[in-house]
This record gives sequence, C-alpha cells and structure tokens, in this order.
Amino acid sequence: MSKVKPYLYILLLFLIPMIFFHFFRNTNGDKNERVTEEVEDSSPKNQKEILPSLVIHGGAGTADPEIMSDSLKIAYKSALFEVLEIGKAMLLNGDSAHHVVIRVIAMMEDNQLFNAGRGAALTNKGTVTLDASIMTGWDKKAGAVACVEHIKNPIYAAYQVLNNSSHVMLVGKGADEFAKQQRLVMVPNSYFITENAKARLKKALETDKTGTVGCVAYDKYGNLSAGTSTGGMNNKKFGRVGDSPIIGSGTWADNDVCAVSCSGWGEFFIRSVAAHEVASLIKYKDYSLSKSLHEVIYNQIDKLGGNGAIIAIDKNGEIAIESNTATIFHAWFDKNGRQNVALSKK
Amino acid sequence: MSKVKPYLYILLLFLIPMIFFHFFRNTNGDKNERVTEEVEDSSPKNQKEILPSLVIHGGAGTADPEIMSDSLKIAYKSALFEVLEIGKAMLLNGDSAHHVVIRVIAMMEDNQLFNAGRGAALTNKGTVTLDASIMTGWDKKAGAVACVEHIKNPIYAAYQVLNNSSHVMLVGKGADEFAKQQRLVMVPNSYFITENAKARLKKALETDKTGTVGCVAYDKYGNLSAGTSTGGMNNKKFGRVGDSPIIGSGTWADNDVCAVSCSGWGEFFIRSVAAHEVASLIKYKDYSLSKSLHEVIYNQIDKLGGNGAIIAIDKNGEIAIESNTATIFHAWFDKNGRQNVALSKK
Repeated sequence: MSKVKPYLYILLLFLIPMIFFHFFRNTNGDKNERVTEEVEDSSPKNQKEILPSLVIHGGAGTADPEIMSDSLKIAYKSALFEVLEIGKAMLLNGDSAHHVVIRVIAMMEDNQLFNAGRGAALTNKGTVTLDASIMTGWDKKAGAVACVEHIKNPIYAAYQVLNNSSHVMLVGKGADEFAKQQRLVMVPNSYFITENAKARLKKALETDKTGTVGCVAYDKYGNLSAGTSTGGMNNKKFGRVGDSPIIGSGTWADNDVCAVSCSGWGEFFIRSVAAHEVASLIKYKDYSLSKSLHEVIYNQIDKLGGNGAIIAIDKNGEIAIESNTATIFHAWFDKNGRQNVALSKK
Repeated sequence: MSKVKPYLYILLLFLIPMIFFHFFRNTNGDKNERVTEEVEDSSPKNQKEILPSLVIHGGAGTADPEIMSDSLKIAYKSALFEVLEIGKAMLLNGDSAHHVVIRVIAMMEDNQLFNAGRGAALTNKGTVTLDASIMTGWDKKAGAVACVEHIKNPIYAAYQVLNNSSHVMLVGKGADEFAKQQRLVMVPNSYFITENAKARLKKALETDKTGTVGCVAYDKYGNLSAGTSTGGMNNKKFGRVGDSPIIGSGTWADNDVCAVSCSGWGEFFIRSVAAHEVASLIKYKDYSLSKSLHEVIYNQIDKLGGNGAIIAIDKNGEIAIESNTATIFHAWFDKNGRQNVALSKK
C-alpha cells in the first residue's frame, strides 16, 4: 500500500488544479454580460451624426388588454419603459444600432413577463424551446438560432452566429453546442420555466399564441438593425418554428431601406415573408413605411387569416407600428425626441 | 402454478393480436409510396387546360464539370432525364403541380447521386441531417422540415407539414416525431450514408459545398408549385440550416407571380431572401422572369460574395434557369414542347 501512495499524491497534484480550473472556467464563463462590449464593432461610423430612433415590441396578442389587471399592465409598461430608456440612452450616447437591439432584447429575455428567454411559453412537453434572430443593415449579415433549450440569451447566440460563424441559421442541439463553445451562459431548461409567468400568462393571455419580443434601432450614424426573440406558441409541439428566427419573415434590416421586426401568428408571417415584403414595397413600389406596414398586415397577413404586428424604422429614421391584433405591447422614441409606451395601438 | 396458468392464457389472448397488429401496422406503414396518391388534391382545376412546363435542378457547384468522368456525367444526366420524363408524363396526364414536385424530388432523394435523402452530404459527425420545403402557389401554403435524421423522404414530410399541420416549419427530433405520426417511412440514419456516394461526391465535388435538388412545376390548370430538398453543406456542424427549408429563401410559389427553387451557398440565399426577391422584382418592378433571376444571382447573391443557381417558372409558364456557378445540373421542358438535360448553363 505504501508503494501506491506516492502515485496518489502525484495524481492529486494534477487533479486539484484541474478541478479548480474547471470551476474557475465555469464561474468566469459568464460571457453574456460582455457580448456587446467585447465584440468588435464593425458598423460604419463615418457619416455625420444624425438623430437616432428606436422601436421595441413585447408581443402582439388577441386578448383584450382590458381583461388584464392594472398591476399587470403597469408591470408590462414599466418593463417596456425601462428597456426603452436604456436603449435610448445607448443610442444618444453613440452606441451602434445592433448593440442596442441585442441589449434591449436580452433584457426582455431576462424578464419573465415576456415570451422570450426566461418566462417563455411552454411546449406540450412542459419544456421551453427558444428562437431568435438578428440582422445588421449595413452589411446585410444575419444570424439566427431556433429550437434551442439551454442558451440563457438566445439573442446573444444569434449575434454570435452572425459574427463568429460562416452560417446564418443553427438549430437544435447543434446551436446549443455552438453557443457553449462561444462561452455564452448556458442554463438548465428549467431556468426558463417560471411558475409566476405561467400563471400570469395563462390568466392574461390564455387565447394568445403569439408572444414575441423585438427591436429595431437606427443609430447616430444612420445604421439600421433588427432583432426578434421568442419562446413561440403556447403548447407547441414537433419542434415547431415560427417566423422569429427566419430572416426575411420575422426579421429584416437593410440600411438602404428599413429595419423590421414582426410579432404574431408566425405561420402567416412566414407565408408572407412579411419583413422582407415590407422592404420590397418600399424599395420597388415607393411605398412609405407606414403604408407598407399597413399593406402587409391588412392586405396580406389578414387576408390569409393571420394576425400580428410589425414594427419598423426606415432609412430616414421614420418609425412605424402596425397591427391587426387587440394588443401590441410596444415602446418607441423617434428622431423628434418624442416617445411613448403603450399596450395597444389605440 | 396451475392457478396461474389460466391468467397466462388470457394474457396471451390479448398479447398475440397486439403483437400481430404491431407488426401488421409496421409492414403496412409504408405510406411514402402513397402520399401523392392519397392526399386530397385541393388545387383548383376549373381553368381551361393549358400547356404545362417543368424545371428540375440537381445542385449547383463550383467544380469544373470537365473533371467529372464521362460515366458519372452520364449517370447524372440519365437520372435527370428519368425524373424529367416522369414529371412531364404526370403533368401532361393532368397531375397537379405539387404532386409532380413531390414525386420528382422524392425520386432524387432516393437516388444517391444527389445531395438529398440517400447519398446526402455528411455532417462533421459523419451523420446526415436533411432539410426540405414545399409551397403551393394557389393558396400560398407552405411546409418545411429542417435537421431531420430519420425521414426517408423529407419532401413528403414537408408536404405533410403543409397539408396535415397548422405549422409551416418543424425542426429536429420534433419533425422526425411528426413524420412518424404521419406514418411516413422512417429509416436509421445509416440508410442515408452510402460509401459509393461518399467516394463519388468526394472525387467529383470536393470543393463544392452546395448540392441541393429542387423542382418547379406549372400544371395544365395554371397552378404553380416549388420544392427543394438537401443534405446541406459537406462537413457542416452545429445544426446548420441553409436556405432550402426556408420559405422565401430557397423555395417560393405564388400563382400570380412565379415558382422558384434555389441551390447554392445557402447563407447568401437567406441573406438575399432570394426566392421571394425574384417574385418581388416581377411583381413590383415588372421584370421578366429571366431578368429577375439574373438580377438576384448577379447583382445580389454574387455581390455579397455568394454563388448558386435559381430555377423558376412564371405565371405564364415561361421557364428560366440562372447561375453563377460552373455547374448547374438541370432538366426542363417548356410549354412549346422543347426539353433539355444539362450539367451547366453553357
């Protein structure tokens, strides 16, 4: 026995630092907070500074907002106000459009009030699967993840796909694996499932299939970016993916035209390629931004039998919000310095 | 012991038919062959009969077709000729556009020469994951599956999503599960992996990332349909999904405009929403079909740094094929009765 002991000591000599390093890595692997600070910002900044604008949505639904309790309405409005103020401050401070989109969406993913990240809708198996996408308007680069189960902030993963991969879309376990390699914060699926959110959503939005968060931003340099994140439909099954992670359907950005993020019954937004259609009408038919949104919502989505909302900013920083749903939780500020937080268009 | 026996007999009385039924179900579960015959055909047929047309692609690549052996060229051409003849016969016989699209693509999925279904490109883990989508032009319905591993014919699954679900896109294990419930033929992943195809593809298409099969059809009733199926990029990882299963990017169909299927470097087709962009240029800029394809391939995909091919048929049955790659395996017949099979545009 005494012959074995020296080996054991040597083994321990190696094992202890390995174990230490393992935990050290894990506790310092919290890259999420640093994503927007660390990434090289390749967006062009050589233009003369202009006035930024921002639109955020927290989901469109068919439930009458009047059935929500006052305290819940205030909770949603306060959450929207906070992210609006943070996004606005970033833009006025000279931050890039996509940094704002990422930060705003990540905050909403962290807030269990919204159907994205923590607090997202549950699948028929009682788990959460998440989708997100982002696009930058100056280079038309895009990134998306779909059906991921362990990425704390799917919008960060979408941005890492845009920024650190040669791909546009990663799905399922592979996407989770990619995010882990990118050292994003990974969580057990149970992290996303909140009892409070479940009960609250059930009460307030029982008939709604259509929560999503999204953001479009226009920065001081005239750059546009759009992003969208969701937990998808309540009780969804079979790995269903809606429009949120689909570039062209849920998200679109082109500095020469507009930035668009959609929320609603995803299947109809895919079949209309809604976000790209908004841009096509502006680019090829000289529609104004608001006319284009109206056309897509009322003459395309609505006519197919779908519903939802679109938020957008055009290349001049004009903003627009359109929906054919009772609610569209949103917040905006425009280049004239006006701002608003509201739960429906009225 | 003799007390137990009667129960055993009763148990067996139930078990035997259950086991029998189980196998009976399995051997009769081969629904694939019947998908196109069984599905109710809801496409409108009340218009006066016109002359149909058809375009098929078997992938676009950057490898010089001259490096391929004559016997391989003949193998590809023969395979394309056969599916063209079958599709043509169906259309002339009055079959619906989407039935032809499904049948043609399923045949190419079954043929290990093509990067779809059996013989598809391998992931970095040595497995096969498959994507497919289909759209019908009269109702703008669409179905897609991505990252599936066990569905013998992903195009059937895409059609079942269109026809038998309220969704447009299903991904990963959930999509496999759905297909199983739809009683499509399921196979072990190893079914898709063929040594011959591996060696052959490696030799002929070593530098190519971009095999895909697709079909656009215009039937006697003026209906358009488009479909696309692929194994994706060679050596892909992280659950990468290209444009093939993305409605608007890889596949689009609208009776009032055109049907489109793309093949190529998927990331660039997603970032250009290529198939929908072809339709937008025709619809909103009055471009001809061939001008629209040229614009998207050369002024959009190419300018972003991508490459690939697009096949399309417009609402008048005119056909077009465009690519900026050395090869585009394709076959077509048009409403004037002309037809052709070729491995490149020249």
